Amino acid sequence: MALTQAMLQSIHDEVFRQDDWGKPAQYIPELATIPPDQFAISVCLADGHCLKAGVADKPFSIQSVSKVFSLAATLGRVGGQLWTRVGREPSGTAFDSVVLLEKEQGRPRNPFVNAGAIVTTDALLSGREPKQALAETLGLVRAMAETDQIYINSKVAASEKATGARNRALAHYLQSHGNLTNDPDLTLGTYFHQCAIEMTTTQLAMAGRSLAGLENAPKVIARAHARRINALMMTCGHYDGSGEFAFQVGLPGKSGVGGGILVIAPGVASIAIWSPGLNHYGNSHAGTRAAAMLSDMTGWSVF
Amino acid sequence: MALTQAMLQSIHDEVFRQDDWGKPAQYIPELATIPPDQFAISVCLADGHCLKAGVADKPFSIQSVSKVFSLAATLGRVGGQLWTRVGREPSGTAFDSVVLLEKEQGRPRNPFVNAGAIVTTDALLSGREPKQALAETLGLVRAMAETDQIYINSKVAASEKATGARNRALAHYLQSHGNLTNDPDLTLGTYFHQCAIEMTTTQLAMAGRSLAGLENAPKVIARAHARRINALMMTCGHYDGSGEFAFQVGLPGKSGVGGGILVIAPGVASIAIWSPGLNHYGNSHAGTRAAAMLSDMTGWSVF
Amino acid sequence: MALTQAMLQSIHDEVFRQDDWGKPAQYIPELATIPPDQFAISVCLADGHCLKAGVADKPFSIQSVSKVFSLAATLGRVGGQLWTRVGREPSGTAFDSVVLLEKEQGRPRNPFVNAGAIVTTDALLSGREPKQALAETLGLVRAMAETDQIYINSKVAASEKATGARNRALAHYLQSHGNLTNDPDLTLGTYFHQCAIEMTTTQLAMAGRSLAGLENAPKVIARAHARRINALMMTCGHYDGSGEFAFQVGLPGKSGVGGGILVIAPGVASIAIWSPGLNHYGNSHAGTRAAAMLSDMTGWSVF
Amino acid sequence: MALTQAMLQSIHDEVFRQDDWGKPAQYIPELATIPPDQFAISVCLADGHCLKAGVADKPFSIQSVSKVFSLAATLGRVGGQLWTRVGREPSGTAFDSVVLLEKEQGRPRNPFVNAGAIVTTDALLSGREPKQALAETLGLVRAMAETDQIYINSKVAASEKATGARNRALAHYLQSHGNLTNDPDLTLGTYFHQCAIEMTTTQLAMAGRSLAGLENAPKVIARAHARRINALMMTCGHYDGSGEFAFQVGLPGKSGVGGGILVIAPGVASIAIWSPGLNHYGNSHAGTRAAAMLSDMTGWSVF
Repeated sequence: MALTQAMLQSIHDEVFRQDDWGKPAQYIPELATIPPDQFAISVCLADGHCLKAGVADKPFSIQSVSKVFSLAATLGRVGGQLWTRVGREPSGTAFDSVVLLEKEQGRPRNPFVNAGAIVTTDALLSGREPKQALAETLGLVRAMAETDQIYINSKVAASEKATGARNRALAHYLQSHGNLTNDPDLTLGTYFHQCAIEMTTTQLAMAGRSLAGLENAPKVIARAHARRINALMMTCGHYDGSGEFAFQVGLPGKSGVGGGILVIAPGVASIAIWSPGLNHYGNSHAGTRAAAMLSDMTGWSVF
Repeated sequence: MALTQAMLQSIHDEVFRQDDWGKPAQYIPELATIPPDQFAISVCLADGHCLKAGVADKPFSIQSVSKVFSLAATLGRVGGQLWTRVGREPSGTAFDSVVLLEKEQGRPRNPFVNAGAIVTTDALLSGREPKQALAETLGLVRAMAETDQIYINSKVAASEKATGARNRALAHYLQSHGNLTNDPDLTLGTYFHQCAIEMTTTQLAMAGRSLAGLENAPKVIARAHARRINALMMTCGHYDGSGEFAFQVGLPGKSGVGGGILVIAPGVASIAIWSPGLNHYGNSHAGTRAAAMLSDMTGWSVF
Repeated sequence: MALTQAMLQSIHDEVFRQDDWGKPAQYIPELATIPPDQFAISVCLADGHCLKAGVADKPFSIQSVSKVFSLAATLGRVGGQLWTRVGREPSGTAFDSVVLLEKEQGRPRNPFVNAGAIVTTDALLSGREPKQALAETLGLVRAMAETDQIYINSKVAASEKATGARNRALAHYLQSHGNLTNDPDLTLGTYFHQCAIEMTTTQLAMAGRSLAGLENAPKVIARAHARRINALMMTCGHYDGSGEFAFQVGLPGKSGVGGGILVIAPGVASIAIWSPGLNHYGNSHAGTRAAAMLSDMTGWSVF
Repeated sequence: MALTQAMLQSIHDEVFRQDDWGKPAQYIPELATIPPDQFAISVCLADGHCLKAGVADKPFSIQSVSKVFSLAATLGRVGGQLWTRVGREPSGTAFDSVVLLEKEQGRPRNPFVNAGAIVTTDALLSGREPKQALAETLGLVRAMAETDQIYINSKVAASEKATGARNRALAHYLQSHGNLTNDPDLTLGTYFHQCAIEMTTTQLAMAGRSLAGLENAPKVIARAHARRINALMMTCGHYDGSGEFAFQVGLPGKSGVGGGILVIAPGVASIAIWSPGLNHYGNSHAGTRAAAMLSDMTGWSVF
């Protein structure tokens, strides 16, 4: 069914009818104090129009949604070679787990768990200066969204660095298995900064058009790469809540602890949702609900 | 792109050009001795036509593909209640692993790992005689395929029972956590028999039309259930090779150690492939390749 | 320091001064209803004397303490061959875990976790009738204790069989790895009966003299075997509480969920303690405390 | 049986009769190139005499044997408080595993796995300069051995730092769980240096007398602490080969990847053995055999 502004508004209103907003991520001070009762949704359609509801022009920290963009940048740069260093399977464990890393000798399960994203960023960095790799990822995001008004919040990046002991553990662990080619501090510095990109839901939905393969999208990602990225978003995009998201929403999606979710309806639409309170998997609580409502209303499930 | 007979034939020919057929499942004597260099593919399209290539009228043991049908039968009978006993997440471990079962106190990760399928069958059995539950599953398969010429191979069932120590371990383990409601022997007896259903690829492709939501398919599975089953096939249908299948093929699929794969292109086609040699995940080696070729040729990937 | 009756009595009195007795094992109805505030201790010394305090003449279910005797019987029968089927390392996991069993392909870590004890019993059974193997184990216990007044409680054995789903899971799991040579029901039947042996603390302390290598002990266990059994009791005798027992008590010991503990002071004494309430490791709560008090008073720690 | 020089010599000769010396640790360049066919054994007896055979005056890198001394120093400084941060159970996993650390939320299983030793060193450091903590540990070692001729090899320490990615991963992981109180680089710097202490077997045997509680030993470790340390050496001193060492040798021991083993026969003797080739657990191959021979000859097993 065609999406209307009224439908988006009804999702928005239904979200505000709920009592439980979840709780913003606590480990990054900049994110911890954000009021949870906020919501935005933006949808870019195949015909070139974008609809929105809520605070769709308010920038938020995209966090792990950035893993999609750094993966796209890295695939563009090194191609399928990346898969010698990182797998393509759901992990069945939490986003920051080291257990499978030990079992599988330093090869992360997929590029969307933290360890896999660190390897992906490391492959993109590839001996260059962090600012060069960052410029590449940020440049790709801006090109996809067709706007230069997207920035990295350096306070958030600094905050992540200060509290990033687990990610440092993962990086050193990867290094101990020979699966890190740059100095861990450089790779992590790049990683922390890319996580601190801020976007509005409208910018994020605009950026997702290339993944959805919409006609009017900038041609910056090869279609074959986009399909593979979408497949990974479907099976691995919500950590150990990925199966549930596929089951309830039926669309590829990638969440971040900042409360953002990028959802792709291939050939149909690019959707971005934001609400900073998280559920117990670390995915946006209201955002996940909104995605399910949208899927139910529109029948956009790929299944 | 529209599928043609020539395309199917070219997949068939390409498969026969390979040297490595994989190795049939060794633990069931009836399956172990099947010559591996066999192949069949059948595709039922939205317009009601079915195309085929190879030995598409030769019955094979569907094994774990039956998990799709018993899940459909169980959802039809007990509905969403099933999800209190079994999860909907990829496991990240082998099909017969007990590790997560211990970690998660007897709740299998999803209905397509063995433990989850045993719970699903147990829920279908629900105090009745095994033959009643079997009649229900087999009846559903026949209705979906619109033929009565589908049978259970009792020799294979007996063979599975004789070599089914691991499945017995899983059943008793589930019982120890209170997640088995029938006598383990009755649930396992039902399970072993449903795995021993034999179908041709054409029958299996016919049966898959209801999951694909094709117009001419018998209306025996609620659309909402079919979409959920497809989602589970996408994230969990190939055990710890599920992410890879989603990545390469981009369609929901369910494999069996008999060498069969059911692949669903929602709204477009139902595909069944058979080749008895397995890859190291326990999925059909040539069948997986053929599915990827078909997806590449047709662009049917949902992504 | 030499042990006196007054010392034993002071341990007994101190135990009764505590409020928390722990909770008897709940999964066996016959054990679940036993009042927890009971205590007995018996100590057989190198000079041939036995001291006791509390209800030292009341039979209790020795449960996993029987693993010591069945190990001794099996080593006597098949010797070092047993170690091809079971390891000698602490497991670091709970007594009924299957996780390591999967990781190590059906070879239990040691003979004192359930899986290892089932393999040990299976090796003792070795194609014979369960009653023959049971007669061998019970005969050894009686010979070691120098009394015929030791019996198997068949109601407890039946109760264990009825609630033994986890042990059945372990047995079938072992079978699936080819590490069970008899019918699982026969091995488990033997195992459940040996666990249901009932002894008084005095009988148990008498039986332990051969392990302690006391001069007046019946010569029924080779000294080399006794030393190895003691070593295993030290590193693996209290499941995932073994390190703690070694740390606090400093003596080899083997506990059972019936609340019994056999403690060996090599060359010095054999000690049996009973109190049916368990701590969170599944070992006797008051019994563990009493063992620590005895060790502190006497300096019998081997360290 | 009383130990004689002839017995030691026969052990020495038997060791040289073997073909397989194992392989020196490869990850530290300074250790990797050491010729494996070297052997030394020193035994200090209760009567004050020390016997030796082989290259007993050649210093070697004590590596993880230093964990015994840093544990003694830390217990002396902070006492039982240490046990709030580290456990006392065998781990059942390799020395550098992170799996249990994740399962048990940053609390290492025992002070002899790497993670536990890092926490122990961190507790000793306690806000001070690394050189102060090192002086404390080295001072204790020298006092125990009654010689000042014991030094840290700074080239080995630098080498460990350069290749210590896994230990850095562990330290950051501990920090992420709040179980590291100093800057990871300071704690690790201290840790790498303490591992690089070099001693001869005679110095090491002299140092062990306090743990053995020999009459003539310097009174620098409380007897209660020594007994607890010995207990931990018995259950955890050889990583996942600890049960095997207890089974074969029957004495508490602590190994290092430098090829050294400290073995304690409480009240009887302190034994140090060195041979740089390792078995598959990472313990000295010839050293383990020699310890078993010594135990068999003397009957010093505590069991």
